[in-house]
Amino acid sequence: MRKGLRLGVDLGGTRVKLGLVDERGRVLDRRAVDTVADPRALARAVWIAARPWMERGVRGTGVGVAGDVDAARGVVRLAPNLGWRGVSVARHFRAAGWTGPLCFENDATAAAWGAYHMELHCRVGSLVLIALGTGVGGGLVFNGALYRGATGSAGEIGHLVVDPKGPRCGCGGRGCLETYLGAVGLSAEAARRDAARGRKNTDVTPLDLARRARRGDPVARAVWDRAGRALGAALANLVNTLNPEVILFTGGVARAAPLFLPTARRILRATAFPAPARAARFRVSRDPESLGLVGAALLVE
Amino acid sequence: MRKGLRLGVDLGGTRVKLGLVDERGRVLDRRAVDTVADPRALARAVWIAARPWMERGVRGTGVGVAGDVDAARGVVRLAPNLGWRGVSVARHFRAAGWTGPLCFENDATAAAWGAYHMELHCRVGSLVLIALGTGVGGGLVFNGALYRGATGSAGEIGHLVVDPKGPRCGCGGRGCLETYLGAVGLSAEAARRDAARGRKNTDVTPLDLARRARRGDPVARAVWDRAGRALGAALANLVNTLNPEVILFTGGVARAAPLFLPTARRILRATAFPAPARAARFRVSRDPESLGLVGAALLVE
Repeated sequence: MRKGLRLGVDLGGTRVKLGLVDERGRVLDRRAVDTVADPRALARAVWIAARPWMERGVRGTGVGVAGDVDAARGVVRLAPNLGWRGVSVARHFRAAGWTGPLCFENDATAAAWGAYHMELHCRVGSLVLIALGTGVGGGLVFNGALYRGATGSAGEIGHLVVDPKGPRCGCGGRGCLETYLGAVGLSAEAARRDAARGRKNTDVTPLDLARRARRGDPVARAVWDRAGRALGAALANLVNTLNPEVILFTGGVARAAPLFLPTARRILRATAFPAPARAARFRVSRDPESLGLVGAALLVE
Repeated sequence: MRKGLRLGVDLGGTRVKLGLVDERGRVLDRRAVDTVADPRALARAVWIAARPWMERGVRGTGVGVAGDVDAARGVVRLAPNLGWRGVSVARHFRAAGWTGPLCFENDATAAAWGAYHMELHCRVGSLVLIALGTGVGGGLVFNGALYRGATGSAGEIGHLVVDPKGPRCGCGGRGCLETYLGAVGLSAEAARRDAARGRKNTDVTPLDLARRARRGDPVARAVWDRAGRALGAALANLVNTLNPEVILFTGGVARAAPLFLPTARRILRATAFPAPARAARFRVSRDPESLGLVGAALLVE
């Protein structure tokens, strides 16, 4: 990694986080702006926030976007949380004033690259990042390099099928990991179980559910247990196929890891091959807020 | 790849195939010897076959072994078909007379490296090789490099779980791809269905089953259809997670691909994300006999 400052942007559904990042992945300064759906207005707002740094001189800008990104063309093929489909985000950034190297990447893929530098100090061969938020995303580092796949969409770990007869998923499939461990799936399952006990409950967040579970609430405990078992089954597939050195969790729901990860690891040990199951080290991100923007910044050569 | 000849060895359960391989992966000469279980006797027999080539001078020797291989230490941790557990195969090869660079690798991983050179001419970014034989194995090439995982056991695609309530697998799990598409699983399912129709059948090979299906036999067709659906489910997981450029089938059962691959691809298209499902190109190896030994040879720098 050549010396010098980079600008990292993490473009999420509600907030855009920006950071000035050095070549070792340290965040020297940071800002945030609210997300607006219009890509032209958004690019302009981000440019205004970034301009003071740009004028001091940066090597380039990396942008992670919550969606399916065509990195080569700088086009967001699909970003449901932003309501974008086929948006030439590179063109909007250039029009807003952007100069110099500018690259785009899926946000979970960028976060994996950030975690590889910030949390693992480039000292592992392979990393599977699992991003636990509204949905479940992922990013992959193999042989010390970011792995994007043929069209840049590698890492959709949330859509590993845990049970072909499981709940309907937003992707059209059934029993995807996301239906058990995504915030939407967790809330829906809690509401269903609460209703079965005659308890009205229309909007339980994963944070509520974690609090309830820590107080010993049986419904909340059952929901996390179910999520842990589903994660364990998905991990067994990942571990048998990819034999990763580190599996790192990030995102809001990762803070509840003590409620589901022990169950998941028990299932993993019981069902995967022993050697790769033993080899996999588990981590929860210490700085989930920074992974995406640092990773995006470090994509700039 | 530096110029010069390498020796490739493919150490299987019944035969050991040897080849003299150039830097472009062309096999200039080949031999085979029968497999014997005693590793010392086996190393000696392989050495006698290889000696004339070794004396002409080779850059080194690569050996693919049907089992779990610790490449760094030259130890076969477990090779059920050879009856080996913790066999220091490097030591036996050295004792038999071997000189120069000598490296060991899992046979399906070596085959993936062979296919990447021989069949894809290093022109793809990513390759998933699926080896269909007695069991179902696999090998992975990411970003143009062989991917082994933390302990060298990456690529156990046969143990992707297709249905957690599916048939018992030799690995201890349930519903692994191998139970549907491995030769043992195919034969067992055919025998079960034949018996249900009052037809005695204790030993139907995949080759028999392919012949019967081509003649329109409904039991054989149903068995291949079931295998194709299981493969489709496993491919959806692979495609969503890894977004590979090429998926290549090799091994004896791959010759029956027309009987199961169309079904598998239909399931894949119906269940995986559209972009990566479209991006994946499918191939059946044109030279399955050579992939393992060529790949092993090309592991020598």
